[in-house]
Amino acid sequence: MKILNMKKETDFNHLNLFSMAYTDTEGSAKSWIFASRSREPSVAEGKPHAPDAVVVVPFHIETEKLVVIREFRVPLGGYQYGFPAGLVDAGETVEAAAKRELKEETGLDLVTVTRKSPPVYSSSGMTDESVSMVYGQVRGEASTRLNEASEDIEVILLSRDQALELLEKGDTKFDVKSWILLSTFARNGIV
Amino acid sequence: MKILNMKKETDFNHLNLFSMAYTDTEGSAKSWIFASRSREPSVAEGKPHAPDAVVVVPFHIETEKLVVIREFRVPLGGYQYGFPAGLVDAGETVEAAAKRELKEETGLDLVTVTRKSPPVYSSSGMTDESVSMVYGQVRGEASTRLNEASEDIEVILLSRDQALELLEKGDTKFDVKSWILLSTFARNGIV
Repeated sequence: MKILNMKKETDFNHLNLFSMAYTDTEGSAKSWIFASRSREPSVAEGKPHAPDAVVVVPFHIETEKLVVIREFRVPLGGYQYGFPAGLVDAGETVEAAAKRELKEETGLDLVTVTRKSPPVYSSSGMTDESVSMVYGQVRGEASTRLNEASEDIEVILLSRDQALELLEKGDTKFDVKSWILLSTFARNGIV
Repeated sequence: MKILNMKKETDFNHLNLFSMAYTDTEGSAKSWIFASRSREPSVAEGKPHAPDAVVVVPFHIETEKLVVIREFRVPLGGYQYGFPAGLVDAGETVEAAAKRELKEETGLDLVTVTRKSPPVYSSSGMTDESVSMVYGQVRGEASTRLNEASEDIEVILLSRDQALELLEKGDTKFDVKSWILLSTFARNGIV
């Protein structure tokens, strides 16, 4: 497959569609539409770039519980369970973004980063969005006092049994990353 | 937060942008842009729906290895490691889609589904895309003979040590779901 050229199809502030002309494995000319948070996706260059966002997997030391948030998501028109997450600011390190977003969304403090992913892709058939997964040990009292007006969040600490109970409750929406890790935690007690 | 109304902003075949008017937690009127594979996102109804896609987590019984694919992704302009995946056809069950996509992309046969997620969301800040995670035991010889012209795929079977090696190789792009599960597999020998 060979990338030919890219065209910006929309002009919104936070998210846009791009079309990519390419040739498939049989040499036929094709076009692929994708969404990007970048004004100029770095795709063509093929070089690694900073992640768009961080996703924090917080393990609460004192209670030995995994922390998730129940958050209103506008694109879903309702509440979803997921991990604390947010966009990385310009010039900010992944660790600093993780610390800041965790504090803003949950009131908790990131004490130790135990594992960190490179930029990994959310759903590369439809977007070049990438996130860095930051697993960490956290401390403190959960609070939503620092939430922004666009954030409608409840902080939930889950033991292994409570994680299993939540997964088995019907009618519940999960972010895929939190579903995978809650499932492993519920079954095996690890993340 | 309260959803007010939704407007379709583009008119492409496979992916579109929508804007959602809503009020934030302080009652201010706001707008949120998101991408959707649906012509009419079911958001407003708030009811569960069929997943857009399936993602197969294939464990190869004979070799006790985890199967990943290295695939060209147009939106990334290059190759990415991930699990076999694809859109669910109209009227198709999640299991049938998982079986079909696994066969098309890897030549392998899905023998037993060991775990299955409800529709879970890829990145709900920017899209309502949902996937069902299907963990399964698989058999057979890897082959890309059934790949479509838009698919440029290499099938790779990984032992625990090989998974670790791949994760530690620099300059490698991963889908987030495969990174999370390869990381758990490499560290703990489970998925």
